[in-house]
Amino acid sequence: METESSLLPKLDDLELFEFIRKNLYSAVISDVLDEFGFRCQAMGPEVRPLSKKFVLVGRAKTILWVDVFEVGTDPYASEIAAVDSIKPGEVAVNCTNQSTRNAPWGELMSTATKARGGLGAIVDGLVRDSLGIIKMGFPVFCTGLRPIDSKGRGMVVDCDVPVRVGGVKIQPGDIVFGDNDGVVVVPSECERDVLEQALEKVSRERSSLKELRAGKLLRQVYDKYGVL
Amino acid sequence: METESSLLPKLDDLELFEFIRKNLYSAVISDVLDEFGFRCQAMGPEVRPLSKKFVLVGRAKTILWVDVFEVGTDPYASEIAAVDSIKPGEVAVNCTNQSTRNAPWGELMSTATKARGGLGAIVDGLVRDSLGIIKMGFPVFCTGLRPIDSKGRGMVVDCDVPVRVGGVKIQPGDIVFGDNDGVVVVPSECERDVLEQALEKVSRERSSLKELRAGKLLRQVYDKYGVL
Amino acid sequence: METESSLLPKLDDLELFEFIRKNLYSAVISDVLDEFGFRCQAMGPEVRPLSKKFVLVGRAKTILWVDVFEVGTDPYASEIAAVDSIKPGEVAVNCTNQSTRNAPWGELMSTATKARGGLGAIVDGLVRDSLGIIKMGFPVFCTGLRPIDSKGRGMVVDCDVPVRVGGVKIQPGDIVFGDNDGVVVVPSECERDVLEQALEKVSRERSSLKELRAGKLLRQVYDKYGVL
Amino acid sequence: METESSLLPKLDDLELFEFIRKNLYSAVISDVLDEFGFRCQAMGPEVRPLSKKFVLVGRAKTILWVDVFEVGTDPYASEIAAVDSIKPGEVAVNCTNQSTRNAPWGELMSTATKARGGLGAIVDGLVRDSLGIIKMGFPVFCTGLRPIDSKGRGMVVDCDVPVRVGGVKIQPGDIVFGDNDGVVVVPSECERDVLEQALEKVSRERSSLKELRAGKLLRQVYDKYGVL
Amino acid sequence: METESSLLPKLDDLELFEFIRKNLYSAVISDVLDEFGFRCQAMGPEVRPLSKKFVLVGRAKTILWVDVFEVGTDPYASEIAAVDSIKPGEVAVNCTNQSTRNAPWGELMSTATKARGGLGAIVDGLVRDSLGIIKMGFPVFCTGLRPIDSKGRGMVVDCDVPVRVGGVKIQPGDIVFGDNDGVVVVPSECERDVLEQALEKVSRERSSLKELRAGKLLRQVYDKYGVL
Amino acid sequence: METESSLLPKLDDLELFEFIRKNLYSAVISDVLDEFGFRCQAMGPEVRPLSKKFVLVGRAKTILWVDVFEVGTDPYASEIAAVDSIKPGEVAVNCTNQSTRNAPWGELMSTATKARGGLGAIVDGLVRDSLGIIKMGFPVFCTGLRPIDSKGRGMVVDCDVPVRVGGVKIQPGDIVFGDNDGVVVVPSECERDVLEQALEKVSRERSSLKELRAGKLLRQVYDKYGVL
Repeated sequence: METESSLLPKLDDLELFEFIRKNLYSAVISDVLDEFGFRCQAMGPEVRPLSKKFVLVGRAKTILWVDVFEVGTDPYASEIAAVDSIKPGEVAVNCTNQSTRNAPWGELMSTATKARGGLGAIVDGLVRDSLGIIKMGFPVFCTGLRPIDSKGRGMVVDCDVPVRVGGVKIQPGDIVFGDNDGVVVVPSECERDVLEQALEKVSRERSSLKELRAGKLLRQVYDKYGVL
Repeated sequence: METESSLLPKLDDLELFEFIRKNLYSAVISDVLDEFGFRCQAMGPEVRPLSKKFVLVGRAKTILWVDVFEVGTDPYASEIAAVDSIKPGEVAVNCTNQSTRNAPWGELMSTATKARGGLGAIVDGLVRDSLGIIKMGFPVFCTGLRPIDSKGRGMVVDCDVPVRVGGVKIQPGDIVFGDNDGVVVVPSECERDVLEQALEKVSRERSSLKELRAGKLLRQVYDKYGVL
Repeated sequence: METESSLLPKLDDLELFEFIRKNLYSAVISDVLDEFGFRCQAMGPEVRPLSKKFVLVGRAKTILWVDVFEVGTDPYASEIAAVDSIKPGEVAVNCTNQSTRNAPWGELMSTATKARGGLGAIVDGLVRDSLGIIKMGFPVFCTGLRPIDSKGRGMVVDCDVPVRVGGVKIQPGDIVFGDNDGVVVVPSECERDVLEQALEKVSRERSSLKELRAGKLLRQVYDKYGVL
Repeated sequence: METESSLLPKLDDLELFEFIRKNLYSAVISDVLDEFGFRCQAMGPEVRPLSKKFVLVGRAKTILWVDVFEVGTDPYASEIAAVDSIKPGEVAVNCTNQSTRNAPWGELMSTATKARGGLGAIVDGLVRDSLGIIKMGFPVFCTGLRPIDSKGRGMVVDCDVPVRVGGVKIQPGDIVFGDNDGVVVVPSECERDVLEQALEKVSRERSSLKELRAGKLLRQVYDKYGVL
Repeated sequence: METESSLLPKLDDLELFEFIRKNLYSAVISDVLDEFGFRCQAMGPEVRPLSKKFVLVGRAKTILWVDVFEVGTDPYASEIAAVDSIKPGEVAVNCTNQSTRNAPWGELMSTATKARGGLGAIVDGLVRDSLGIIKMGFPVFCTGLRPIDSKGRGMVVDCDVPVRVGGVKIQPGDIVFGDNDGVVVVPSECERDVLEQALEKVSRERSSLKELRAGKLLRQVYDKYGVL
Repeated sequence: METESSLLPKLDDLELFEFIRKNLYSAVISDVLDEFGFRCQAMGPEVRPLSKKFVLVGRAKTILWVDVFEVGTDPYASEIAAVDSIKPGEVAVNCTNQSTRNAPWGELMSTATKARGGLGAIVDGLVRDSLGIIKMGFPVFCTGLRPIDSKGRGMVVDCDVPVRVGGVKIQPGDIVFGDNDGVVVVPSECERDVLEQALEKVSRERSSLKELRAGKLLRQVYDKYGVL
């Protein structure tokens, strides 16, 4: 499934993320992952961007939370450590096991993450300070909003371990890509091949759209380009 | 319940749909359906437009899907045939039985449908290519978004049969009307009478609003106009 | 937890609501309620504003609904009475026990409420006429939209009694505050102290944000300001 | 669809209920209701008998509940009145609109109902005193168990009105029939015809079973008896 | 609310648990907790005993779990330590935050707990080895069954901390009582008074039942005994 | 992971199924599948046996259903063909995509399946004629009961294709094993090795239990036998 002359230039991580942020979208990446046999890489429809315009690309910095029921001593210690350890090009991928009790992510966490070079955040749970985050233009994806703090409700128990978010297993370092259709996870073992193929598929989709607009039947266009 | 001099001009289907798209809204149609004894014609709140501004009117072209678990030979054959058979004035009404596994509808399907004269799509399931569809201005209603394709996940098993979408039984040819409040289904047996009455009710609602704004009590206004 | 010189001016209710609408947000009020030991005052993520821009403040006028299954005589009598009894500064807080069968609130109810001096509405259920309500700029919070009327589906059984909405117990007269993050309920017994503290916390949050933007670690900033 | 010589003897209500309790079952009644065009008469799978052995037959005495959030004065007044007004041959059909907050039915209510000649109870909600009720042999169907009382949590708002329980609309006086497969509701307008047909279908089912056990193919047996 | 001559003998914990296991039931304890103002002490209907006959009494030994997504080194270490530290008269109260991914409790854990003098287990999640546990007569309450192990799926993160199970906040050392109607939690601060009152209420309930069976109206009996 | 001298005798399929039905249980098979890296083979807790005593073993005969909304001509044709084609040693594994609209399986289907040599049925949906099926001793697993027929509600669309039931992907011919803890699916590629290991693990579990009963700590017993 390799292409001869690559559509994907040689780039470092930060340049790569910017390149694919501008040139790809989640649906085409998902299709190529399917072709490579990775058929469970798209998060469920409950994980939504705070803004329709958000596009998120980066490497997963995984953070595992647990619901707790008392305010401990230094209750934020582990989440502060997690955020302070984020590296440029990373996305905070927070697994709360679908908690709806509190909002572990907000504007302060977003601001701190951005200051470290982080590129966004995903939470399989709730978020607060939504308007502030939107105003920052910092792409946060979550399952809902609630104004309530994590103190005494949720606690970080581990970092940099495999997690499951939106139904997808994520290894630390996997590329995550999110836009208004949702989030896909690209396993690191095939990331370059997948991105290559996706760039190639984008052009076939554009041609299909053009001919459909011109009135061709879907049958004809699909037979010609093989994309749907 | 007929009115003497009709508010509804004699129009062909396409003109009629344009007329009611501009002059009616889902809530007033739902109220009149209630009065005619059709009390289960409003889809549930899970069926949402991709854009607040979308207004959808047309005759239901019903399409029935089933979840599948392998990629068959020519896996898109039946859905391509369904879309290619859409006629002017029709809306693709897709019943997936609330599947959240894949997004059977997207920009290519929307473009192909529009090219056939189709006026929109409803899915009791997921959609992808949301921003592209919004940009087209093609009214699509669905229960969520996910970037993942139907290939090997969903398959069209039948067309032009009764379906249930959003909790409402729909016969092929029923008029469907959707706006930001949701979708109502007008059975063909009473469509003209319902639309007539709805036009008449709109004016009573406008009068009620005006008097309420002027400070009248709801009791007074309701007693006068009989609408709430 | 009292502050010496108050940040909160002496104001009557309507002025107070306008002041806090401009100077506070739900997350900071929730944090202060936590500090006061009121840890269950934030409604769940299912209660959403019709518009991202809506900010809602007022005293709860509670209204209790029950699902019914026939159209009674004068079916709207009790809801009309409820709305007509709303007083300036009040917010209609409708408890339907999470009904999704109908939309008990719409543009006529909003218009009537506004005419009485009401400042908004919360429904733990569905709403209709959403675009009209947004256009009015009348802050309505609900769990979804559906174009279907309450007649023969829902009925007001009581007013001015304790209710539970979005998982929070609300007494008539409690201050409710809603914005894009959700809704918090401030018990009347501690309202002045909570609002004072919240104003004070806002300034600490602003300082934290500024230093985080300047590149300080979250650990440093949290140790200095004690907010997260 | 009438049969010439009736399988159903002329009986008064109490004798009739005892006769059909012994000779029919919910599945065969549901099939015949389907044939008569009443296709939404079987409650959903969430309504379960407290004991596998329970068979329930009687006329619906409908009771409508609402969730409340304070202990009123004489909080049980309306439910006591409802139970005390039950007549011989009736089944208490309690609509709580799927409340899971409390258990409005228990051993005292069952005992009082039985003392009035009541034949059972259905609740689209929770029940308590389950072992006592099972020991009484009083057929109660519900959606779950919880030891918590209705006082200050649920209140009867009306009796002898149409309700919806387990997804089925029930008119006062409809015959309800429940066994381990669930509950069906027989509208009074067709009850005699439905019961007749059901008795007739029972014998065809027995013949089908006998031939299947003897090794005939399902195709052969279905072609012969027309039942599945 | 104290009674003069106590119905509750002076007993040590193990004798007390055996006494109330034989003389009380969850519904009556729940009613008395209501009277004492503790109105949120009954777990939700999802927490069920493995056998109808199970009655569970003991002090809560709380155990907090988190879902994990890899098999760590010595993955069972913390749960083994938790079980080995159970003391006579304790009940293992496992909070998994409603996980349905695995069954953290089974026959080996039950056997080990029993060997330490533990009196039962509650899990707000799944259990396996159900028939073995039933055969042991060891009262286990849970939300479902699944044959799948916790290794690499769930991990104990803490013990002897407040947890929430079945919607009820539980402090280590609270008395938990479970039977076929569900589980109630008696806060230690009022346990003796609650148990006293419950014993007293049992006798009033028996008298009510007797008079109802004799044909008295519910109104009469309630007015006399004040219990429902 | 092979053992030298096999605990599993050489047997034909029917003898094998009887052997493992008597000697294994779902939990131990699930544990061994975990060790082989097949970690998603246990169905979810919603799939339950009709009787606690049911043990089910056989090869999957997969049947795929779709919800439909009208009674077609010969509406049962495909399901009759499916059942009539069942071969000795097979279990009917019905994928309805979690439909709760009707009960596609009942006593007639069970009787016909048994007559063909079928060994049981699994449905990710509802069943009827529960008491008759229990009396037959024919192991049926399902997600609930409802007395309502599939005619015009559900239709078989395919057989002998991969399906997903209870969250597990099943290939035709996979061994399915179900008991009161739930159902596990053994992929055919590793079935002999898995069953071997499971038999070996059973004896280690028995030894663990014995030593725990004798009072050893879980830590000691786990260190010695390595099972939990």
